Amino acid sequence: MSASQSLAAADEPVLLRQDAEGIATLTLNRPAARNALSLGLMNALQDTLDAISEDDSVRVVVLRAAGPAFCAGHDLREMRANPSPEATEHLFKTCARLMTSLVRLPKPVIAQVHGIATAAGCQLVASCDLAICTEDARFATPGVQIGLFCSTPMVALSRAVPRKAAMEMLLLGEPVPAAEALRIGLVNRVVPVADLDLAVAAMAGAIAAKARRVLAVGKEAFAKQIEMGLDEAYAYTAAVMTKNMAMADAQEGIDAFLTKRRPVWEG
Amino acid sequence: MSASQSLAAADEPVLLRQDAEGIATLTLNRPAARNALSLGLMNALQDTLDAISEDDSVRVVVLRAAGPAFCAGHDLREMRANPSPEATEHLFKTCARLMTSLVRLPKPVIAQVHGIATAAGCQLVASCDLAICTEDARFATPGVQIGLFCSTPMVALSRAVPRKAAMEMLLLGEPVPAAEALRIGLVNRVVPVADLDLAVAAMAGAIAAKARRVLAVGKEAFAKQIEMGLDEAYAYTAAVMTKNMAMADAQEGIDAFLTKRRPVWEG
Amino acid sequence: MSASQSLAAADEPVLLRQDAEGIATLTLNRPAARNALSLGLMNALQDTLDAISEDDSVRVVVLRAAGPAFCAGHDLREMRANPSPEATEHLFKTCARLMTSLVRLPKPVIAQVHGIATAAGCQLVASCDLAICTEDARFATPGVQIGLFCSTPMVALSRAVPRKAAMEMLLLGEPVPAAEALRIGLVNRVVPVADLDLAVAAMAGAIAAKARRVLAVGKEAFAKQIEMGLDEAYAYTAAVMTKNMAMADAQEGIDAFLTKRRPVWEG
Repeated sequence: MSASQSLAAADEPVLLRQDAEGIATLTLNRPAARNALSLGLMNALQDTLDAISEDDSVRVVVLRAAGPAFCAGHDLREMRANPSPEATEHLFKTCARLMTSLVRLPKPVIAQVHGIATAAGCQLVASCDLAICTEDARFATPGVQIGLFCSTPMVALSRAVPRKAAMEMLLLGEPVPAAEALRIGLVNRVVPVADLDLAVAAMAGAIAAKARRVLAVGKEAFAKQIEMGLDEAYAYTAAVMTKNMAMADAQEGIDAFLTKRRPVWEG
Repeated sequence: MSASQSLAAADEPVLLRQDAEGIATLTLNRPAARNALSLGLMNALQDTLDAISEDDSVRVVVLRAAGPAFCAGHDLREMRANPSPEATEHLFKTCARLMTSLVRLPKPVIAQVHGIATAAGCQLVASCDLAICTEDARFATPGVQIGLFCSTPMVALSRAVPRKAAMEMLLLGEPVPAAEALRIGLVNRVVPVADLDLAVAAMAGAIAAKARRVLAVGKEAFAKQIEMGLDEAYAYTAAVMTKNMAMADAQEGIDAFLTKRRPVWEG
Repeated sequence: MSASQSLAAADEPVLLRQDAEGIATLTLNRPAARNALSLGLMNALQDTLDAISEDDSVRVVVLRAAGPAFCAGHDLREMRANPSPEATEHLFKTCARLMTSLVRLPKPVIAQVHGIATAAGCQLVASCDLAICTEDARFATPGVQIGLFCSTPMVALSRAVPRKAAMEMLLLGEPVPAAEALRIGLVNRVVPVADLDLAVAAMAGAIAAKARRVLAVGKEAFAKQIEMGLDEAYAYTAAVMTKNMAMADAQEGIDAFLTKRRPVWEG
């Protein structure tokens, strides 16, 4: 935790955004609350993703966090203060819409994880396209410990890791260390704490060098085809590739490859 | 194999049940037949699962086996003695209903595996929510060796492990050692033979400390949402969590967590 | 690369077939083009698979490649020379049909991989039932680098490996070494270069010793049940096993097993 992170105060925005070279870096900024997903933070994240979705200057998104934790899930104090079924329903629908927006966003999203990522915080990691974490990161879906099963986190988790691994996290609620998270497929890479920023920057930079429209085509196709049977998936993706091939970026990319020069994307 | 296990005789029940502290331990008890799933054993297991399903004193189930093997699959001698299509159809439908009952049971089920778990025995392991095995355990779907492809075990296996790993087990029929079973996700943990009882007891005890109704909510939600597309799964689980939040156990669990005391579940 | 392989000339067939002891070995034979899947090669492979599908003498198929690479994907020069939407659509439909035919072929298919397997070449590996590769093999879906996202390879890849691993390959386009391909489930085994032929021959031989009709039953059942919900999958496979049990091969196999002799399959 850097000095600047620890000083985040009540009047600071709960979500920070910094853009550079096609990379939008979003920082969960409620460090004192371990970045618990209050309605305010979820709404800020939703609004920012909606804006990024339409922002041609962004090619890839990094989701990171201020303070010692990545994200501790929902804000239990806020939940207990608003216990009506209407308030609860609104909360979980807001969360489900947010997680779905990560999957549907036409830009790749990389989770940059340190410390704990629990409950809806673990769901954030599972919902991102890619994830890099530190060696001391830990992941959990501990709702069962407090009588509130992690049923919405389960949706993202059970699509990211094998079934028995998901069940163990959900039924026991115990923290899973970084190496195990890598083994089960919840994260792509584990790096020393000191290397996290650099490792994420390298991955984000590599993606930002790709054609924006082509990344959007591929990410949309992935989410759609994974829910189809084999024949439907191939009919759909063959059509996607035919359209992709007609795009200027594909013409340029293939020509650049065959003539051994760097491609210049449409922007 | 303990002395008491090796002495299991023809007049002993084919399935033993022992309950303690919210844990129902079921022991396959046909050691001389390597716990082959005769119709009698499958019916006994089905009846016991049906009873446990309604039994509020049970929070978690352990499925273990007497003798040197966990379970060698169907009883081939019984099958050859009853070769009619009607008898065969009845057998496979009975087996399919049993395996589905493990998935649908509103209590977590832990497979405690030693020795071999083959064909429908491997299917039992794949169908349980969690599995711990000994270092010398081995798993196989060897039906292809005897001209009877493991097509029903395939259903559970192909939902637990990656596709090429499942195909290798099904097409070659060779035994997979414990370490490989862990690697592909068929079991959660591998322990020395001497530690098996303790490791399973620790896991079962941890689950038995959770709220019974909440475990039931979560397990049902898992089985349902895994078959849905993303949007449907989130709409469904958001509703599940809203209902869960209104349960007394959630109110108690969250209050206990925030006030740093042990929760007392409804029972 | 052997001398004979390196001498493959323009007038040689683009696909070689050699049959021995129930094993049909197909060799991609455009080594100078790193076995790029020209329309000619895809058509030759489709025709050969169609013929093998009906050929009772074949029990298992090995797909290998001549020259230093397994397969570099589509033939970009051919694609650029035929840029019309109609030509592109025809190409991707031809490829999708070919990959689907590997999955639907009533004989197991083993990919024998050395060197690079990229784009549609990686899709070939993902589409085969089993895969063995050399320690120096590398896999990639690099379409994103040239503005043409690997959307059809994604269909096979995302059904073979965990979601974040698939996303990393698709969004970054970087080569994945053999050990990592094993870890994520894209291949079954990694062997030293010198052992590749022998390892594949052993696996193919083991499958060729099984009953041809029973392999066909199992492979068809796998592809169908994996797309079903649990109840439907069990109803379907219980019926499959009932029919399988009535086959002469099952009667023979069970009898041979119980009487401890080698089974003699129907052929």
